[in-house]
Amino acid sequence: MTDTDLKQEFWKRLDDVRAGLLAADSERPVPMSPMPDKDANAIWFITAAGSAADRAAKSGGEASFYVADPKANFYANIFGRLEETNDVAKLDELWSVMAAAWFPDGRDDDAVRLVKFTPRDGEIWATDGGAAYLYEIAKAHVTGNMPDVGEHGRVNF
Amino acid sequence: MTDTDLKQEFWKRLDDVRAGLLAADSERPVPMSPMPDKDANAIWFITAAGSAADRAAKSGGEASFYVADPKANFYANIFGRLEETNDVAKLDELWSVMAAAWFPDGRDDDAVRLVKFTPRDGEIWATDGGAAYLYEIAKAHVTGNMPDVGEHGRVNF
Repeated sequence: MTDTDLKQEFWKRLDDVRAGLLAADSERPVPMSPMPDKDANAIWFITAAGSAADRAAKSGGEASFYVADPKANFYANIFGRLEETNDVAKLDELWSVMAAAWFPDGRDDDAVRLVKFTPRDGEIWATDGGAAYLYEIAKAHVTGNMPDVGEHGRVNF
Repeated sequence: MTDTDLKQEFWKRLDDVRAGLLAADSERPVPMSPMPDKDANAIWFITAAGSAADRAAKSGGEASFYVADPKANFYANIFGRLEETNDVAKLDELWSVMAAAWFPDGRDDDAVRLVKFTPRDGEIWATDGGAAYLYEIAKAHVTGNMPDVGEHGRVNF
């Protein structure tokens, strides 16, 4: 699978992932809901002012986003950069599309912060499901014989 | 919630998690299926000889296990130590209970390795579901007002 195909698969699968762990440098990992934005090569997060993600974003820091969603059959370790934005229009857009159900009273919450994660590179496993596949992948790395279920590879954004 | 209660919640929730990311020191994170064993204070993994998890276990290394399972409403970052075992009886037991469906032809695969992860400490989020909760948790860290849905805390094993 080409790098381009893997990236396509990444964005497609990420649409089905409700949450992963965001680990910013010098901060503990925290569960966060990704809002993928393929056209902008970005993953948006809504968080609270002063939270770990917000602190990391303010400092323009590097971060890893871990996805391990057995229901979506999707696993990923994505490395990139966080930044806080004051993009009210983008927040409105994300709110209307994805977040309305999450924060019924919260759009005007002063603590709401929008954080942009720009992925740089990573590794993804888009499987057809089942733990056996994970074993096959582990073994494949050693033997060089890749199983023909699912997709796995390193990717550059 | 007490440390003991959080630990109980951890083991209970982990039973419903089909896979997480195992990140051993100096190795890239890889998706692995946990087999929780509360009585032994251990999480068992089956992997392939020579895989990243196997290499890390052989060296008795430290590792983090990341859980981010939106369906199980469970998120965790657990730090501990990996070791490889030659415990055939334990492998047989895990196989019969959990792995038979995963490796229909594989029990006698020479590459099968049993790895034991002994958790030391970590942080868990056992939520009632929904991304709004993740926002509430992030905010609670700042304001000190904890939401009354789900459980969150640091835990020592």
